[in-house]
Amino acid sequence: MVKYSFKNDYSEGAHERIINALGVTNLYQDDGYGEDKYCKEARSVIREKIENPQADVHFVSGGTQANLIVISSILKPYESVIAATTAHIAVHEAGAIESTGHKINTIETSDGKLRVADIQSVLDEHTDEHMVKPWAVFISNSTEVGSIYNKKELEALSTFCRKNKLYLYLDGARLGSALCSEKNDLSIAELATLVDVFYIGGTKNGALLGEAIVILNDQLREHFRFYLKQKWALLAKGRILGIQFLELFKDDLFFELATHTNNMASKLVQWIKKHNHTFLTDPVSNQIFPILPNTLIAKLSKKYGFYVWNKIDDKHSAIRLVTSRATKEQFVNKFIEDLE
Amino acid sequence: MVKYSFKNDYSEGAHERIINALGVTNLYQDDGYGEDKYCKEARSVIREKIENPQADVHFVSGGTQANLIVISSILKPYESVIAATTAHIAVHEAGAIESTGHKINTIETSDGKLRVADIQSVLDEHTDEHMVKPWAVFISNSTEVGSIYNKKELEALSTFCRKNKLYLYLDGARLGSALCSEKNDLSIAELATLVDVFYIGGTKNGALLGEAIVILNDQLREHFRFYLKQKWALLAKGRILGIQFLELFKDDLFFELATHTNNMASKLVQWIKKHNHTFLTDPVSNQIFPILPNTLIAKLSKKYGFYVWNKIDDKHSAIRLVTSRATKEQFVNKFIEDLE
Amino acid sequence: MVKYSFKNDYSEGAHERIINALGVTNLYQDDGYGEDKYCKEARSVIREKIENPQADVHFVSGGTQANLIVISSILKPYESVIAATTAHIAVHEAGAIESTGHKINTIETSDGKLRVADIQSVLDEHTDEHMVKPWAVFISNSTEVGSIYNKKELEALSTFCRKNKLYLYLDGARLGSALCSEKNDLSIAELATLVDVFYIGGTKNGALLGEAIVILNDQLREHFRFYLKQKWALLAKGRILGIQFLELFKDDLFFELATHTNNMASKLVQWIKKHNHTFLTDPVSNQIFPILPNTLIAKLSKKYGFYVWNKIDDKHSAIRLVTSRATKEQFVNKFIEDLE
Amino acid sequence: MVKYSFKNDYSEGAHERIINALGVTNLYQDDGYGEDKYCKEARSVIREKIENPQADVHFVSGGTQANLIVISSILKPYESVIAATTAHIAVHEAGAIESTGHKINTIETSDGKLRVADIQSVLDEHTDEHMVKPWAVFISNSTEVGSIYNKKELEALSTFCRKNKLYLYLDGARLGSALCSEKNDLSIAELATLVDVFYIGGTKNGALLGEAIVILNDQLREHFRFYLKQKWALLAKGRILGIQFLELFKDDLFFELATHTNNMASKLVQWIKKHNHTFLTDPVSNQIFPILPNTLIAKLSKKYGFYVWNKIDDKHSAIRLVTSRATKEQFVNKFIEDLE
Repeated sequence: MVKYSFKNDYSEGAHERIINALGVTNLYQDDGYGEDKYCKEARSVIREKIENPQADVHFVSGGTQANLIVISSILKPYESVIAATTAHIAVHEAGAIESTGHKINTIETSDGKLRVADIQSVLDEHTDEHMVKPWAVFISNSTEVGSIYNKKELEALSTFCRKNKLYLYLDGARLGSALCSEKNDLSIAELATLVDVFYIGGTKNGALLGEAIVILNDQLREHFRFYLKQKWALLAKGRILGIQFLELFKDDLFFELATHTNNMASKLVQWIKKHNHTFLTDPVSNQIFPILPNTLIAKLSKKYGFYVWNKIDDKHSAIRLVTSRATKEQFVNKFIEDLE
Repeated sequence: MVKYSFKNDYSEGAHERIINALGVTNLYQDDGYGEDKYCKEARSVIREKIENPQADVHFVSGGTQANLIVISSILKPYESVIAATTAHIAVHEAGAIESTGHKINTIETSDGKLRVADIQSVLDEHTDEHMVKPWAVFISNSTEVGSIYNKKELEALSTFCRKNKLYLYLDGARLGSALCSEKNDLSIAELATLVDVFYIGGTKNGALLGEAIVILNDQLREHFRFYLKQKWALLAKGRILGIQFLELFKDDLFFELATHTNNMASKLVQWIKKHNHTFLTDPVSNQIFPILPNTLIAKLSKKYGFYVWNKIDDKHSAIRLVTSRATKEQFVNKFIEDLE
Repeated sequence: MVKYSFKNDYSEGAHERIINALGVTNLYQDDGYGEDKYCKEARSVIREKIENPQADVHFVSGGTQANLIVISSILKPYESVIAATTAHIAVHEAGAIESTGHKINTIETSDGKLRVADIQSVLDEHTDEHMVKPWAVFISNSTEVGSIYNKKELEALSTFCRKNKLYLYLDGARLGSALCSEKNDLSIAELATLVDVFYIGGTKNGALLGEAIVILNDQLREHFRFYLKQKWALLAKGRILGIQFLELFKDDLFFELATHTNNMASKLVQWIKKHNHTFLTDPVSNQIFPILPNTLIAKLSKKYGFYVWNKIDDKHSAIRLVTSRATKEQFVNKFIEDLE
Repeated sequence: MVKYSFKNDYSEGAHERIINALGVTNLYQDDGYGEDKYCKEARSVIREKIENPQADVHFVSGGTQANLIVISSILKPYESVIAATTAHIAVHEAGAIESTGHKINTIETSDGKLRVADIQSVLDEHTDEHMVKPWAVFISNSTEVGSIYNKKELEALSTFCRKNKLYLYLDGARLGSALCSEKNDLSIAELATLVDVFYIGGTKNGALLGEAIVILNDQLREHFRFYLKQKWALLAKGRILGIQFLELFKDDLFFELATHTNNMASKLVQWIKKHNHTFLTDPVSNQIFPILPNTLIAKLSKKYGFYVWNKIDDKHSAIRLVTSRATKEQFVNKFIEDLE
């Protein structure tokens, strides 16, 4: 018997409209390396969506690519980036940021979110040329532990960073889920006024692959394609990224898919709560971390794929459940039944 | 009027069977990062094709990725790679190899191909720790100027490299065209016995994206997935690379496509010769460099896309024509008519 | 009035015998880059002192150089080094280790010393290729907060590292002070059997500049001079490092100087304790961290140079006092008087 | 019998005044890392000598350090530096520039000197983001083959570089010899108006070690000490570099030593010419390359140390003779006698 997977949001292929779009456009001849008409149109629709006609938009294949290309393009050799200890760049990129020569100043957090006081403390510690110079701040929305930034929080970070000459970069691998969360009060256009650069995750929200880097700060625009090429991120058939983002954003497919994703997670949350289980972190997006009895976990793990996150006590552990745009409600319902 | 493009071999999407395969497999849940069943099967069929059941096969998105990940995994910080001045890594990767810390020792060649004497001269010049230590040799087949290595030439390189403890790496961005050339006398299985590592180019022979790195030398296997991840080349939905290579190699689609590609080039060559034009380099693969009168070039450029490669004399220039698996014979015929 | 400085152990020049040796050898012609007779003799005397005739010895200009050359020579691109959060490489080298592409996995400690359980926990967290692979352990003796490793502690680390295939590297910027501490039970020869590589600090113990890297593990020897040259650490007149280490080690000047250094610190410790002040960390080497009333600190700071380390409570702070081989007892006596 | 060495200009220690200065200043307490009073005074006298009170002056230990710190501080990751194929950075630094991630675009020259047309041709070839972007030009004076730039030549390079937004950097490892050449028509103050940054070589002109980086262009000043620290070039006892440069420049010792050096070379040149021998390159500084019969070379090599540079024909080779500030006229005279 094959288990139904709640392990992550990249277990399936792409939304069928995307597969279809790849087929329809297939024999059209166009320039390579992201200079084709689909990429151009996709850039336009994204600029419209964020209400910023001047934004630069570049497409890359994955989140680690986006993160290290953006960050290494911002930093001089002796400059560092500040991030939570749970940040993807700090843990799960096999040292890719460091491989470009830069230190990550990490901060312990309770919920994966950075706060002004945290960043200030890093600045206070870095006073001279014997230490790195913090120059950028990395946040993710939603975070690696499923939490999201509300408008007030992001505004506070933005104000602080601008005052202290720190570039603010937002990793949006799961931006769809964050922005479609019931707890969210931030539009993508507002977000785009608060950060210097961010990326919109396609891979985890309906695409085969692809992330859209959006540059808002003029100082980061120059020669960005050189960074893309030198960091081996320009695809010869760059069109396949444009085609997918065009499909996701020409109407609101991107948000529809994220809403479905979140709905599936919410349904799980609702029933897990009903059974009086608690959560490691407040469940607000498509990654949820219920704390369950080990006996129940053992039972569920026979039918479903998921990660056991950490031990809580001798009898309980937190698990991670992730829903995706392809999660089928019938399996959510089955899972709920099996919670009994 | 839109021009028909002979500019390169990545102007269109993928072969229709590949688009179809992506659709068919789309909703199957599987593990990410290249550990899915399609990648596993694709590795098997490639191992069979090269007749080496022990070979390691890894899939990446593009040629620059393959080149720098392989080369930087081979070299210690002070070691260098030897390549022709025309090598892709030396010219058209925006310094990606150097960005990983390594020097390229370049050699001038007449035809893009390295020879034993060239490599020996580099070794002779590098005698102590004040200079880099050459440790790998980069060749491409077909080369960046369309030439191919025959069996004897590759054997000579292989013997020399093994004797001199140099790793031999072959860039196969256009390996299909090389192996299906009328002038070729080398099988992919023979090739795999002569090099330490090579890659099979998918992007330029029918795939949307994807290159298959094949590791033959035991010393290069260890922890290769760490290199892939750290160098931001592991796709979350790695399956899309496996699906494509499985389709290309489960029967001989890969070679069929390359044969068509070469046939289109050969037809062009035949007629260009018939008109008594010569070539910059011997035309044996899907990149050909005819030398034409500037007046004819001007005329052709109104209908067809191609690059003017270099000036030959005041009245003549060499142009580059590239055919692909998607090149339509009707346009080749039109081009031939327009040669008059 | 000029203040007498207890700020660090590099405020003066070199021991007079070293200045003299530079003069005496000055016009002798010899090879450059560390291949002169003084470097050779200095290597010999160091090998004798550590009782290991096979050890490789290389001289570099400073501690940051030694650290990053050793560490970057040990690690493959995706591998990391484990260190205390207070480690010099983690804080005070401006990201030099990261600039060579490597992550430092840091561990919070109470006293700057790593323990087996700490290292095990880092290993436990790093399980696959999405994370770096810890491959070396960095310790310093004495540590950056003045503590030292005893024999049993170092043996425990050594055994653990060998069992877990981790290279153990010891930064000996202040090795003289550590080995001459009253609390020390470890000889330099014993130490050399327990680590894979370490360096003996000359700059902070009598030299103008210079650290001697000692390689014990065969696997780290090969081509080390390439690393030295490529990491811009080979001095043309490398002899000046050999001359100094020869002078320090041909008799036991190195240990004499460290003993004086420690005696000066001990005298301070004795009197500070007599006045019922406590210490931030156990004062056992030439860096001591007394906790004093702010009023007393203000008074002392008018006559002496030192760093205020951190705030303890509203009325007390810890300061750092560092003695050196050049510290004059008369000023120690004055400082003691001023403690009243 | 020990041979007298004409192998290089770093075979001896320092000028006796420098040894003496190190002794005199030895016990003075001062700040580390180049912030002591000697470094400050040395900066002042250098600024006076180059008639530019705004210049930034930083001291490092060696030429490779100076080169890669300057160049890597100028370039963004995708930018490259243009240099002659004979340039020290291109050959004899074991790939140090590439180790910081940057490509060197090399140009073949007859005499080690770059010319405007050479640089223009590199610019012409680099047109888009698939290639590196040339952003700095490296020259050395005197060059690695002993030639020097005259005023007109340097002005031409300077004008071209400013027009084309290329930073011009001059490696002055042997600047003393260049400026004191009989063929020189350039003052150090004039030179300082024509380049963006250069370094004054101490190691090869009287110091134990030390090069003074002089930054003229405002855009290169910022945070330079961070580069120095991160690239492991800040010495704890930085004073020893300041003490030496102060001694070299407080009167004109630097130029006196270079004049002696050149005089010794000129005497050799005069007599070699008298014997009707020719030179590989015009002998104008302290590196000369006479072409001699192999029989004579064999004879001379019994008494003198020097490098055989290259084979000219079956019976002749070019050798390299280098004089230094410590070269004794008596040995020059002996060598001349042995030319018979």
